[in-house]
Amino acid sequence: MIERPRGTRDLGPDEMTYRNYVEDQLRATCESYGYRAIQTPMFEHTKLFKEKSGPSIIEEIYAFKDKGGREIALRPEFTASVIRMYFQEMREVPKPVKIYYFGSAFRYERPQAGRYREFWQFGTELIGADTPYADAENIALAYNCISILGLTDIKLKISNLNILSDFLEENGVGKKEKLEVYHLVDKGEFDEIRDTFDYGDMLCKLIQSDLSEAKKYLKESSSISYLEKVTDLLSLYEIGEKDYSIDLSTVRGLDYYKGVVFEIEAERLGAEKQICGGGDYQLGDIFGGEITSKGFAIGFDRTILAMKEENIELEKKENRYYIIPIEEENKTYAYEVLKSLRDKNIIADIDLKGRSIGNAIGYADKSGFSHVILLGEEEVKSEEVSVKDLSTGKQESVEKKEFLENK
Amino acid sequence: MIERPRGTRDLGPDEMTYRNYVEDQLRATCESYGYRAIQTPMFEHTKLFKEKSGPSIIEEIYAFKDKGGREIALRPEFTASVIRMYFQEMREVPKPVKIYYFGSAFRYERPQAGRYREFWQFGTELIGADTPYADAENIALAYNCISILGLTDIKLKISNLNILSDFLEENGVGKKEKLEVYHLVDKGEFDEIRDTFDYGDMLCKLIQSDLSEAKKYLKESSSISYLEKVTDLLSLYEIGEKDYSIDLSTVRGLDYYKGVVFEIEAERLGAEKQICGGGDYQLGDIFGGEITSKGFAIGFDRTILAMKEENIELEKKENRYYIIPIEEENKTYAYEVLKSLRDKNIIADIDLKGRSIGNAIGYADKSGFSHVILLGEEEVKSEEVSVKDLSTGKQESVEKKEFLENK
Repeated sequence: MIERPRGTRDLGPDEMTYRNYVEDQLRATCESYGYRAIQTPMFEHTKLFKEKSGPSIIEEIYAFKDKGGREIALRPEFTASVIRMYFQEMREVPKPVKIYYFGSAFRYERPQAGRYREFWQFGTELIGADTPYADAENIALAYNCISILGLTDIKLKISNLNILSDFLEENGVGKKEKLEVYHLVDKGEFDEIRDTFDYGDMLCKLIQSDLSEAKKYLKESSSISYLEKVTDLLSLYEIGEKDYSIDLSTVRGLDYYKGVVFEIEAERLGAEKQICGGGDYQLGDIFGGEITSKGFAIGFDRTILAMKEENIELEKKENRYYIIPIEEENKTYAYEVLKSLRDKNIIADIDLKGRSIGNAIGYADKSGFSHVILLGEEEVKSEEVSVKDLSTGKQESVEKKEFLENK
Repeated sequence: MIERPRGTRDLGPDEMTYRNYVEDQLRATCESYGYRAIQTPMFEHTKLFKEKSGPSIIEEIYAFKDKGGREIALRPEFTASVIRMYFQEMREVPKPVKIYYFGSAFRYERPQAGRYREFWQFGTELIGADTPYADAENIALAYNCISILGLTDIKLKISNLNILSDFLEENGVGKKEKLEVYHLVDKGEFDEIRDTFDYGDMLCKLIQSDLSEAKKYLKESSSISYLEKVTDLLSLYEIGEKDYSIDLSTVRGLDYYKGVVFEIEAERLGAEKQICGGGDYQLGDIFGGEITSKGFAIGFDRTILAMKEENIELEKKENRYYIIPIEEENKTYAYEVLKSLRDKNIIADIDLKGRSIGNAIGYADKSGFSHVILLGEEEVKSEEVSVKDLSTGKQESVEKKEFLENK
């Protein structure tokens, strides 16, 4: 028996109905913000991911040689591809360029609960607008995407990396040590920070400050004012102080981020609680160009898990009709009703196996149909349909025309 | 400059709007027929594809070893994965199981016009119903999927492989020669068939016959009656004789097909005209089980090409609003209108770069917005919006409340 590869999933009909609903909600939300869909290849030249994330990325990705000897790799994320596409195809498009993507990405790592080798991401890029308005829009859209799904037990954390960066520069810290400090901040190793660096104690205090207090630790506080401006603008999107927290320990762990960054966490997911992360970054140098983008990526699988933890059900449960002709002679009438329903994009099905009426009702019930429609001699004569609700057992006869018109 | 890998594509916003529309139409049509979405991994154990299509498939696919030494391959098609998933996950589901899939698949071959190394397929499986009703439903759904897209210059060809098979068996032909004959029929090498086999002339006549004539060449004609039954049933779906042709040379070229098969061609695409193919097949033996499935696959990329050849435009062109606050003080009012539109899933955007009014209108125009909404002191005071249609240049003031309510 050949099984699916380790760390991958088969997604069945119930799971896909749920996921398609979530995908549709995210798409509609991004489109309402003027973002438009794009799609990049499932694999890229390995070099692209190495240039973006450093050569050690190779350990974690599906990299191989194709038959032409090219080094290619399944994408481990989308940003590198999107920025490549921008430089290859979209440089001339008026700015800002607002785009979103959805698809699967791949990483080679030990599979564990909730972490798969093929996983799905939904994300956006807002390319070429470097203003507080753009940062606010980016955060508001991410927050709106998560809220629209019905998630409430979530936490939005916002920071500006320039605050830490300015503080470190004012304390004479060079680039290498800066990255080391970011790494420790990301891991939450505050004791080590205090012990290792003479400015460590002050840094930890800065990180725990709110914005007005933070000004005490900086000579030049424009990075703080910038973040204040961004959070002010969030109120235009009806995102208020109760909805987010300023958390200067949010550093995103990737050194191409700069400026305003944020994360959204779903509290109930424990260690894997980050469902969305994003911010402002600079990737143009890989392509010898300059471009600012503000974007975010939603971990689609974790978001689905978070929704299930909050018992969020699909908004609209669709009716599904199973049509049962009582006698062979009523087939034509039955197919007429079937076709009329399907033409209106209403889910309708009919027996294809020649089952008895009892067995057909049994099949409909086990297969998630909400109603059966029984059509016998009488219904044909009176141009009616007998509709039985499988959840209540209630059956009623309605004029066929009326039944179809109300759909 | 790192470019995308050879034979792959970046799909931009206009292309994706078109493709998402087509995808949505296909999904809705299949769902109305009671089919439900599933998803399988992007790669499988290479063995799966070898067992299904023979070891030579390896030449044409992206096969490689993962870091754990497993032989895996990017899927070249979906059927093998779907049947694997059925045996691994869905054996206990009441029959028939009706499922559909959409995604990209991969083949390593020389890229040429309209043929890419990553390509998209949409397809279905109807598992576990071996009746003429099931064959008719399968063909009707495929035809309906293609028709709903607006394609009219298409050709549906139907056959029953058992007709050729019975004829060859009645003439004492063994399995090996049978496959050889099918191969020649598939290539249209009728002269060679006539020259090579002593039954060749009769076979060619059979292939060119209609169903009533075909009976002359067979002792046992149940395969012909079966196909007649299927085409009779197509009339229940309002698919009549003008919509299809019986073409006994349709053999699908793959030896796991048996029974009724069909193809849909888009005449305008020339050599690459087949946009859909399907039929009845048996794949259970790979998994030591037995199962009949009837399904089809639509070549998504070719279907898109065919639609463009027929100049099919998207049904509904959505309005896109670009909001321009005249003065900084009107921002709050502008964001109110913006949010109200977006909350109704209407596409709306606002300047994020601090452009002048003239430049903002220019951006909106170049970026495909249909309307700009100008909001100045006067509009704020009178609670109105000034809406300018960018295609006609006409501008009118409407009460804000009325404007939003009519959306």
